[in-house]
Amino acid sequence: MGIAHSRRKSKGSAAERDLIHKFWANGWAAVRVAGSGSTHFPSPDILVGNNLKKLALEVKATKDAKKYFPKEEIKNLKFFAEKFGAEPWVVIKFDRDDYYFISIEDLEETPASFIASLELARRKGLLFEDLL
Amino acid sequence: MGIAHSRRKSKGSAAERDLIHKFWANGWAAVRVAGSGSTHFPSPDILVGNNLKKLALEVKATKDAKKYFPKEEIKNLKFFAEKFGAEPWVVIKFDRDDYYFISIEDLEETPASFIASLELARRKGLLFEDLL
Repeated sequence: MGIAHSRRKSKGSAAERDLIHKFWANGWAAVRVAGSGSTHFPSPDILVGNNLKKLALEVKATKDAKKYFPKEEIKNLKFFAEKFGAEPWVVIKFDRDDYYFISIEDLEETPASFIASLELARRKGLLFEDLL
Repeated sequence: MGIAHSRRKSKGSAAERDLIHKFWANGWAAVRVAGSGSTHFPSPDILVGNNLKKLALEVKATKDAKKYFPKEEIKNLKFFAEKFGAEPWVVIKFDRDDYYFISIEDLEETPASFIASLELARRKGLLFEDLL
């Protein structure tokens, strides 16, 4: 694992921990899902719930203005959410900006990937406060 | 970590993986929750869901005829399940026997712990097939 990759990873984990704190502080329960090392089944990064709703979240942090998702990752998130009975969301923390919750329906699709730009996030994403 | 402890741990993990497979094979989605190292919030070992139900599971394997739970563990499971909107269950795999799903209401309570004996599991527990 290169240093750049390792730093990216740890930024993602920091965003996950931060989100989990935010959800608990607002009366939800939230957990990090154990890495795919343990099973070969699709799984989100975070599962969140209260008595009304469950959310399956794929969480990314990026210093770029665009975040690319392999198609497989979004398909797995959607598949998992349907099976579990949860809403699938992508959550992106852009550098020096907020967390944006983006519906997977709203991601831009290309032949190779799904893309969320900061511009799209600001236009279509929800902030944490909007979600509650 | 002593060898005995390490072996007990790995038996518990094997039971978790096995259960996750069973749930997926029966149309549910199931995930292992990341260890408590990452956050200080209460969390179950496994979260399971389908479109009707969510289950928060504490999973143990034992070669003894009785399994003791620290009170804190069961209280945390109950607290988590209420917040998340899931049913709390204890699942015990006794050596050379089946998985028993035991409602936390049915655990025997002493001043120091909650206890599930094999006898209690057989009398009050559900088998995987009963749960579906």
